[in-house]
Amino acid sequence: MEITLKNGERIDELHRNGYRIIQDTGRFCFGMDAVLLSGFAKVKSGEKVLDMGTGTGIIPILLEAKTKGEAFVGLEVQTESAHMAERSVRLNGLEHKIRIVTGDIREADQIFGAASFQVVTCNPPYMIADHGLPNPDQPKAIARHEVLCTLEDVITQASRLLMPGGRFYMVHRPFRLAEIMTGLCAHGLEPKRMRLVYPFVDREPNMVLIEALKGGKPRITVEKPLIIYKEPGTYMDEIYDIYGY
Amino acid sequence: MEITLKNGERIDELHRNGYRIIQDTGRFCFGMDAVLLSGFAKVKSGEKVLDMGTGTGIIPILLEAKTKGEAFVGLEVQTESAHMAERSVRLNGLEHKIRIVTGDIREADQIFGAASFQVVTCNPPYMIADHGLPNPDQPKAIARHEVLCTLEDVITQASRLLMPGGRFYMVHRPFRLAEIMTGLCAHGLEPKRMRLVYPFVDREPNMVLIEALKGGKPRITVEKPLIIYKEPGTYMDEIYDIYGY
Repeated sequence: MEITLKNGERIDELHRNGYRIIQDTGRFCFGMDAVLLSGFAKVKSGEKVLDMGTGTGIIPILLEAKTKGEAFVGLEVQTESAHMAERSVRLNGLEHKIRIVTGDIREADQIFGAASFQVVTCNPPYMIADHGLPNPDQPKAIARHEVLCTLEDVITQASRLLMPGGRFYMVHRPFRLAEIMTGLCAHGLEPKRMRLVYPFVDREPNMVLIEALKGGKPRITVEKPLIIYKEPGTYMDEIYDIYGY
Repeated sequence: MEITLKNGERIDELHRNGYRIIQDTGRFCFGMDAVLLSGFAKVKSGEKVLDMGTGTGIIPILLEAKTKGEAFVGLEVQTESAHMAERSVRLNGLEHKIRIVTGDIREADQIFGAASFQVVTCNPPYMIADHGLPNPDQPKAIARHEVLCTLEDVITQASRLLMPGGRFYMVHRPFRLAEIMTGLCAHGLEPKRMRLVYPFVDREPNMVLIEALKGGKPRITVEKPLIIYKEPGTYMDEIYDIYGY
């Protein structure tokens, strides 16, 4: 398998099935949030999965390794990122399972058609476009700030793309929690499972993992806390498990 | 001060200002949820506070001890509980600060008038009326199940009773979290602060504490976890602090 690395790109090990991934530190590297989302999401045998805003392709690649899903699609608006994700798919010989599509989340229902997936995942930009320091480096800004798509866009599209009974998995920042809950409910996606990620046991959470069910009835299970560090520099055992070390 | 105890009633110490409270194990005794809510709620100097569904009167009595609020009102629909709460207020010599009113939460805005409080607190019945084992003992059923008022009633009334910029504090069960968030937002009460209460660090939370701001903008702070037990039989230090031991 011959894979061309472009200037600034490197190959990292994923500790799952011997899989590797191409990243570019000048653009955007996947973070712990993507890995935790891949550990939180449940994909059953035979299911079709769409990852919206796939970036490096990390989520479909990890979900392919961890689950029995039938087919995975990664949608990415930035052409260069999409091409990089595509090369990672080939690098791992996963072309028969994972398809990378270049396109805009806001047009996802037109690209794929309504009700075409059992599972939709998303690690969206967290920051409201006019909040925080704007990132002068455009690829990172698009990945981090709601420049090209908002939380509302992500939820609207997830709802359209899911079959009835389908599941939406998202990782986000806790400060958006009320917007997430109300947005999901307004689009017929009932929050069913939530887990807060606390860096330390005595700190505020910095991530929230959410599962919502298309057409579900109200009742959410809030899971035990996911704590990252036992002490500075030492992860909790569960984090090593999720990473596959 | 002469206080008559009725059959089945007892007096318990509150470990705050020497305050005591009358309870009746045959009816309903306050739980840790009420104490945690009184530790979570913030009442500033001069503010007027309404506790909806006050039961034994535990929340206004603890808030009077812990804060500089000017006046506290406890609303209770069950006449016998209201009388008991009133005797606890007299037992502590707090008639000038705390008023107990017998009445229905669903009519609270008519009893007190709209926009008449800076703070509203509530430890409402948690269970949906047709869920769980119905409690044949009516006073406990009313306190625990949504027999006389629903979550929607509580939120509707809190919104009407609060002045603009006023704060609503509620303790509830995490499984209702999505309903709580959407209900609050639908009534102009923006969730601003949330804390999950985990019995142990590796267990699902069994309570959620919420602060919502009348007319606030979206942005919620999810606080560090409130963990109850260090190990079976030993509370975490923070729990002792909240109880005032």
